Amino acid sequence: MAALQGSEPVGFFEIKPEIRTQLVEQFKCLEQQSESRLQLLQDLQEFFRRKAEIELEYSRSLEKLAERFSSKIRSSREHQFKKDQYLLSPVNCWYLVLHQTRRESRDHATLNDIFMNNVIVRLSQISEDVIRLFKKSKEIGLQMHEELLKVTNELYTVMKTYHMYHAESISAESKLKEAEKQEEKQFNKSGDLSMNLLRHEDRPQRRSSVKKIEKMKEKASEGPGGGIMLPASAVLEVSVMVEAGLAIPLLTLVRPQRQAKYSENKLKCTKARNDYLLNLAATNAAISKYYIHDVSDLIDCCDLGFHASLARTFRTYLSAEYNLETSRHEGLDVIENAVDNLDSRSDKHTVMDMCNQVFCPPLKFEFQPHMGDEVCQVSAQQPVQTELLMRYHQLQSRLATLKIENEEVRKTLDATMQTLQDMLTVEDFDVSDAFQHSRSTESVKSAASETYMSKINIAKRRANQQETEMFYFTKFKEYVNGSNLITKLQAKHDLLKQTLGEGESGGRGRQGGLSSPLGCVVVP
Amino acid sequence: MAALQGSEPVGFFEIKPEIRTQLVEQFKCLEQQSESRLQLLQDLQEFFRRKAEIELEYSRSLEKLAERFSSKIRSSREHQFKKDQYLLSPVNCWYLVLHQTRRESRDHATLNDIFMNNVIVRLSQISEDVIRLFKKSKEIGLQMHEELLKVTNELYTVMKTYHMYHAESISAESKLKEAEKQEEKQFNKSGDLSMNLLRHEDRPQRRSSVKKIEKMKEKASEGPGGGIMLPASAVLEVSVMVEAGLAIPLLTLVRPQRQAKYSENKLKCTKARNDYLLNLAATNAAISKYYIHDVSDLIDCCDLGFHASLARTFRTYLSAEYNLETSRHEGLDVIENAVDNLDSRSDKHTVMDMCNQVFCPPLKFEFQPHMGDEVCQVSAQQPVQTELLMRYHQLQSRLATLKIENEEVRKTLDATMQTLQDMLTVEDFDVSDAFQHSRSTESVKSAASETYMSKINIAKRRANQQETEMFYFTKFKEYVNGSNLITKLQAKHDLLKQTLGEGESGGRGRQGGLSSPLGCVVVP
Repeated sequence: MAALQGSEPVGFFEIKPEIRTQLVEQFKCLEQQSESRLQLLQDLQEFFRRKAEIELEYSRSLEKLAERFSSKIRSSREHQFKKDQYLLSPVNCWYLVLHQTRRESRDHATLNDIFMNNVIVRLSQISEDVIRLFKKSKEIGLQMHEELLKVTNELYTVMKTYHMYHAESISAESKLKEAEKQEEKQFNKSGDLSMNLLRHEDRPQRRSSVKKIEKMKEKASEGPGGGIMLPASAVLEVSVMVEAGLAIPLLTLVRPQRQAKYSENKLKCTKARNDYLLNLAATNAAISKYYIHDVSDLIDCCDLGFHASLARTFRTYLSAEYNLETSRHEGLDVIENAVDNLDSRSDKHTVMDMCNQVFCPPLKFEFQPHMGDEVCQVSAQQPVQTELLMRYHQLQSRLATLKIENEEVRKTLDATMQTLQDMLTVEDFDVSDAFQHSRSTESVKSAASETYMSKINIAKRRANQQETEMFYFTKFKEYVNGSNLITKLQAKHDLLKQTLGEGESGGRGRQGGLSSPLGCVVVP
Repeated sequence: MAALQGSEPVGFFEIKPEIRTQLVEQFKCLEQQSESRLQLLQDLQEFFRRKAEIELEYSRSLEKLAERFSSKIRSSREHQFKKDQYLLSPVNCWYLVLHQTRRESRDHATLNDIFMNNVIVRLSQISEDVIRLFKKSKEIGLQMHEELLKVTNELYTVMKTYHMYHAESISAESKLKEAEKQEEKQFNKSGDLSMNLLRHEDRPQRRSSVKKIEKMKEKASEGPGGGIMLPASAVLEVSVMVEAGLAIPLLTLVRPQRQAKYSENKLKCTKARNDYLLNLAATNAAISKYYIHDVSDLIDCCDLGFHASLARTFRTYLSAEYNLETSRHEGLDVIENAVDNLDSRSDKHTVMDMCNQVFCPPLKFEFQPHMGDEVCQVSAQQPVQTELLMRYHQLQSRLATLKIENEEVRKTLDATMQTLQDMLTVEDFDVSDAFQHSRSTESVKSAASETYMSKINIAKRRANQQETEMFYFTKFKEYVNGSNLITKLQAKHDLLKQTLGEGESGGRGRQGGLSSPLGCVVVP
């Protein structure tokens, strides 16, 4: 019991204003949270409104760009014979790039539409929700606070009741004690022993009472600064009681009456104390429930659907952006496919087909016999036979030499072409480095400063390429000249071989087959 | 032989201008092809220059947009205590959206850089290449054409030689025949039989000669319109020869001389014909080679590297666009992850931690004993015991009823919350339909006209949601009131139970444990 009194309990009146402050601050906190959210939602709305504008500008610029070239193509198609130009693989790529531009334009317009008519609408609805939910939550919060106030007020009331009854109980006790002292004085004459025993029993209690009162006085003198709200009247009452207790009572012989009064007050005090204790338990439980559950529930009420609705808004934005990307990707794949199909050989054939009257080989030169000349073949009879045979052998050896020489030229030509091809197909188009950089927070690195596209490298590579090209053309001319000569000599050689072979085997007989090497059609 | 003469060979002079026209047209075709390419390259350069501008504008707009909000955030951070705001999941999403905007801005600036300093540079180089290659190819082509001209001129020369020698050969033959006739006349006196034999042999040849000449006359009369360029002098010569053949020779006795002349001319004619035939074969082979191989090679020279260089240019463009896309995608994934992590519970705890002095539960109310009252527990001695016991039982049955009632309210509350949650988490954010449409060539379909975001649907859904929300709050109030009452009664009930239990078991003894339900700390 002494230990309990020795502890320094936090007083009821000390906690109450603290709780009040907390409750007020809690509302402020919720309000601030809602205001932050409204600000965030307003920022997001502004952001998406402006982003939508930017997307629309971008879309319009792309549309204009595509249209500029598309209309040019349309007009050139009408005026010229270029109808089949799109069949050529580079033109096809170009048309697909324009197509992709229009597609991007449409997709960014769609982005604008989704931002304006979906994302922003959602955000403004969430703003409404935040305001409405904060209002409703505050309403509920106020109700909770009223409940807490009611509970603590009740506690205050029952505590006051207990204090009052306890004070009355003390008063009744001291009056009873006084009456007993009077009786004792009268009884003292009958026996000192009993009186001594009584005093012995009474002393420690009185001493402790003195101690307690002094303590209470000390506390009272600390004033309102100490947070003790013990009313001055109470202190006064105690002082009166103390003086009364020390003074010698004048009235005696009222003991039975005072005994009844004391018992009655003691019961009242016990009941009040019990009530106070029960209310204390209920109040602490209510406050504890509020801080542990209700505040959290209150915040949940404020939050109701906020995160879910915001998530759906962000997901709408993400869905739009992802879909834009998918659409872009599809378009780029189409272009990539067309680039894979860039084919000079097929284009060459297309062009030659388009102008086939220009590239179609002419009819062969026919033998023009002179005035009834019935001989239309090489004559290998004597006396020309020997000469022809000599010529044939000369041609044969000349051709062999020429073919070896030209084969050497061809090999050089092929090797040069391979070198050129390697230069022309070098894989120098990967620009991912430029974006790798932009992925970090560093400043954009110029793509022109990259290895392949630096000015020095470009100049070097081009000089190298053109040198190889020059060499290729020189060798090509050489090869064409050589092969032209070979072709002519080979034709003569073959004709002589045929003639001489015939002469050797069947003399100047009929020619076999339907078509002579001169192109004369022999009808049987 | 008769069949061969019956066919109508295309004349040498008929083909020659045709070939010339073709060769000229072939150059025109190559030139047109190169011009088309230069036009294409110029269009592409213009396109990418303008696209680069558009990308830069877009980049700058995005940069400005992001900066506007970023600077706002920076200033609000300085002025307010919102330092930890970014810990909240919606704010985190917002910051990531801004981050993504800056990233897009940087990436589009990179696109501009690549278009300007790489793609356009490549295109202008390809233009130079096309011009240079066309010039070089034309040079080679001219050489090829000269070669063809040379070959056909040679053919013309050898043909003329053959015609000349053949004419001379005919003339010598006819003179020889005349001399033979003179001889015959003189010989006729010696024997008629031999003369008859000779005439018999001579007649069919002469008749066929007449036929042939008539044919040639017919052809000549067709004039230049028929494309026959047989010179008039040749026709004349033939006529003279014919007349000479029919007339009776005046001179005789020159036969041996004429025989030698005839043999000499016949050999010359044979050699000339052989030369003509060999040259004819060579010429046809050369022309055939040109049309079948050289023209194609010439086009290849013009094309040299064009497709490969253009492909690399397009691939640079594609690489840039694909990398932009990858970067975008990465950024969107980061946002999506943040949206997945939008978490009201964690945010609630963050807020409560940030303002923990506001949400921290206060110390419990302590029992305030009155003036030396040493009793600090519920007293359950007689005469209050019976009353307390009655009160305890009343509390017990009241609590049972209340709990059942409140449990019903809680069930309704939970069901309502589930309905609300379903409304709040409906997956209405997929906007791929809007892009599906843009993938076709149809006009952009407004996202607002889609099922979820139509005005009627929005209004309906919101009305429904708010109705449910209202009901939820009504039930929530009911539940909070019920649970508040239960909490208080339960606290009283528990204290009474403990007190009475103690009273029953160990009377008014010491309390067990360290902490009483009232919060009095019992120090042993």
